[in-house]
Amino acid sequence: MRIAFQGAPGAYSEMAAQRAWPAVETVPCEHFEDVFASVAAGKSSHGLLPIENSVGGSIHRNYDLLLEHDLPIVAETELQVVHNLIALPGTELTQIRRVCSHPQALAQCEQFLRRLSGVEIVATYDTAGSARLIRDQKLSDTAAVASTRAAEIFDLSVLQAGIQDYRDNITRFLLVARDPEPTGTADKTSLVFALPNAPGALFKALSVFALRDIDLTKLESRPMRGRPWEYLFYVDLAAGRTDVRCGRAIVHLAESARWVKTLGSYVRWNEASLRTTVAEAPVDVSAV
Amino acid sequence: MRIAFQGAPGAYSEMAAQRAWPAVETVPCEHFEDVFASVAAGKSSHGLLPIENSVGGSIHRNYDLLLEHDLPIVAETELQVVHNLIALPGTELTQIRRVCSHPQALAQCEQFLRRLSGVEIVATYDTAGSARLIRDQKLSDTAAVASTRAAEIFDLSVLQAGIQDYRDNITRFLLVARDPEPTGTADKTSLVFALPNAPGALFKALSVFALRDIDLTKLESRPMRGRPWEYLFYVDLAAGRTDVRCGRAIVHLAESARWVKTLGSYVRWNEASLRTTVAEAPVDVSAV
Repeated sequence: MRIAFQGAPGAYSEMAAQRAWPAVETVPCEHFEDVFASVAAGKSSHGLLPIENSVGGSIHRNYDLLLEHDLPIVAETELQVVHNLIALPGTELTQIRRVCSHPQALAQCEQFLRRLSGVEIVATYDTAGSARLIRDQKLSDTAAVASTRAAEIFDLSVLQAGIQDYRDNITRFLLVARDPEPTGTADKTSLVFALPNAPGALFKALSVFALRDIDLTKLESRPMRGRPWEYLFYVDLAAGRTDVRCGRAIVHLAESARWVKTLGSYVRWNEASLRTTVAEAPVDVSAV
Repeated sequence: MRIAFQGAPGAYSEMAAQRAWPAVETVPCEHFEDVFASVAAGKSSHGLLPIENSVGGSIHRNYDLLLEHDLPIVAETELQVVHNLIALPGTELTQIRRVCSHPQALAQCEQFLRRLSGVEIVATYDTAGSARLIRDQKLSDTAAVASTRAAEIFDLSVLQAGIQDYRDNITRFLLVARDPEPTGTADKTSLVFALPNAPGALFKALSVFALRDIDLTKLESRPMRGRPWEYLFYVDLAAGRTDVRCGRAIVHLAESARWVKTLGSYVRWNEASLRTTVAEAPVDVSAV
């Protein structure tokens, strides 16, 4: 198993991959697109993509990319995100004039960062990449918001640990592959559909699940490009594709939707099952 | 009328304000929070906030801020966004080594920007602010993605006009005020609500509108902070608050929702009504 992820080594996506699939090899990619391309080209067997964060919300770019690429979702995992302010060893907090990180990470530490006066906040493409930049350019006035793993990899020190505004800061990730086989008995299904522009269309669409007691765990809307104020709807269902109710609901949905696409059917993430798996595995979960 | 907006003079928000309310005075603010603060403190009578773009999707930060502040929505407007590559006069496209703009603007010109080789793409907090930076620092190797109005204000030239990937690139803006009076007979209402964590909860919530033939023009979900994988739902209804169906639907919704809040009731945007208004007004609509 070779899992592609976006970011530099030490990125939260890499930590999530190594935690859920301990023996895995990880492949850093610059952009989310490159993760999809790596899997599509067979350079990686799987790709792991952050899809939503419990504080920041959905990572919309990845919803769009799931639709643009034909790589089914085969699993999901979650990671409790602990952000840290990290800098060159020996640096004091009072010396910091600049804090770099991904905009989502910066937004998740807003209250902490606001208390630092005279400090410029700089949005970058990457949490761990910001740590690497500080090491490479020996920036003694700059700190990054990143994982403790990124600090270890790039020989930086943790100036302040756990600086996120909310303790319950969890990111959910989707694992995509070329082969649609899930890693167990699927009990969750992700769909995307487009509806006619008619009153009550969304209500009718959701009725196909409600009438069969299928729970929706997530509903996300994204604009349809080239059709202002029309939307695509992404839903996660608490039922596997082989569940007869799920199959019937999808057929029923297709009666009124303009189109429907199944993005994948997979095993719902379960923290307890992880504990059994990682008990024997030599994984660093210090920042988790 | 003094309308606060986020960005530097020449920002798309300012263009939208001046187009919809021609005689208005505009007040530039650094962050979206500052727009709300300016109105709350009485420094501005109104604030204009981008809420969604037909290509990029919702501006989620403003959904969150609408809930954090008690400033009702009193109107909406739309602006067709035309992005331009602008630089110091005399600069050739081949000299450009860096393109700066707001991440949404960069994303909306992705196909154009990808064709520029050897050019670094830099995300900034502002479209017009990037134009100002180029003027202030005389950056002859840098271009900004911004409006023609920003080019005029900061004495820059348009290297290439209309570089956005999609022609139909429209941003919808909301006007907030301290006083909830709409600027006409309201026929649109924005609500936010939280639901119990139970199967079919969203379906039941939407039924209160569907059963009364009230059309939903938009549904957006945002995470509830501190409650992982629970969501707030923002809906726009095609009915004014004084419409008896709307009032009844809200009362009905409150039966099952954990809470409901009306964000405002206002006149639905109508391009035709603008044409009558701006016909006599000396407004520069060259980039619209």
